Amino acid sequence: MNPLRERIIKDGKHLGNGVLKVDSFMNHQIDPQLMRYIGEEFARRLAHTNPTRILTAETSGIAPAVAAGLVMNVPVVFARKHQPITMAPEPYREKSSSPTHQKQVELIVSTEYLQASDRILIIDDFLASARTLVALEKLIIQSGATLVGIGAVIEKQFQNGRELLKHLTVPIESLAIIERMDGNEITVTT
Amino acid sequence: MNPLRERIIKDGKHLGNGVLKVDSFMNHQIDPQLMRYIGEEFARRLAHTNPTRILTAETSGIAPAVAAGLVMNVPVVFARKHQPITMAPEPYREKSSSPTHQKQVELIVSTEYLQASDRILIIDDFLASARTLVALEKLIIQSGATLVGIGAVIEKQFQNGRELLKHLTVPIESLAIIERMDGNEITVTT
Repeated sequence: MNPLRERIIKDGKHLGNGVLKVDSFMNHQIDPQLMRYIGEEFARRLAHTNPTRILTAETSGIAPAVAAGLVMNVPVVFARKHQPITMAPEPYREKSSSPTHQKQVELIVSTEYLQASDRILIIDDFLASARTLVALEKLIIQSGATLVGIGAVIEKQFQNGRELLKHLTVPIESLAIIERMDGNEITVTT
Repeated sequence: MNPLRERIIKDGKHLGNGVLKVDSFMNHQIDPQLMRYIGEEFARRLAHTNPTRILTAETSGIAPAVAAGLVMNVPVVFARKHQPITMAPEPYREKSSSPTHQKQVELIVSTEYLQASDRILIIDDFLASARTLVALEKLIIQSGATLVGIGAVIEKQFQNGRELLKHLTVPIESLAIIERMDGNEITVTT
């Protein structure tokens, strides 16, 4: 059995309204063995896309993207929500929204780290509404780089994010797929 | 020669006023080989402190803390700057400030992931003014856990952060120490 699926069933918590808490192993505390599995599994499923960079979004995407980058030996770029003083002027920007912070956010990437010649693999913690993934895709389009694949640790299938991604022809891989959450029962396929 | 020192000299940029830009390999883009070295080096220097958890701060501490956690097989907890809807009520909170965002921030950790029985190793990207490290120490004190060591990827020695930490008797390890930055010249010892 997939150790991620096991862990979601054991420690994931449905907080209502489709919100899944996975803070004990992924979004606040990070379990090292599970994260190693996640990195290896992304590599197994997506290394064939030959990415030159992995792109993720601050904050919860960083750990799985770094785990994948370490296994695949590919640099990881994380889109920032705020522009630090170290960032070069006129970065790429896209609006998105954060379901777990319930607000609009901006995703910002310096033009230094997304180049037209790049092949970009997007890695993120969730595929839910897919709004963050679409914002990352738009950053890639701005840069002229090529999107080669998308990997999400957990897909909440009932939030229909795949609809927003149906224009894409690249591989989209989710390591665990949640079909539904009813009260305390979380049904995970895959 | 220490590959981190080499990389800082090659790709670090002094932006003036003591601000060092390391976005090309650590704070916006993450170099996988360098990050693997960083994780292994933290383990070599600090695994003997027998931590039960590694504590870091969102955002730039996450990658080096995860790299160390993967090598040492220890869970990583990252203090959040904003409380997500998934976080249990009444978390530990400490004020700090972000030099690269030039604003006050709050560091927030759920009481679920810092326990009185824990031995905590703090890992962060910089030891500069040490204000973030002190805020993390105060979170540990709130929880009743024991601080067993501190690891920083880069120490900016000229910002005298060690002064703020002189009450501590635990090992404090910096993987590269910057003595001074004059114009474009960055002097890195170690």
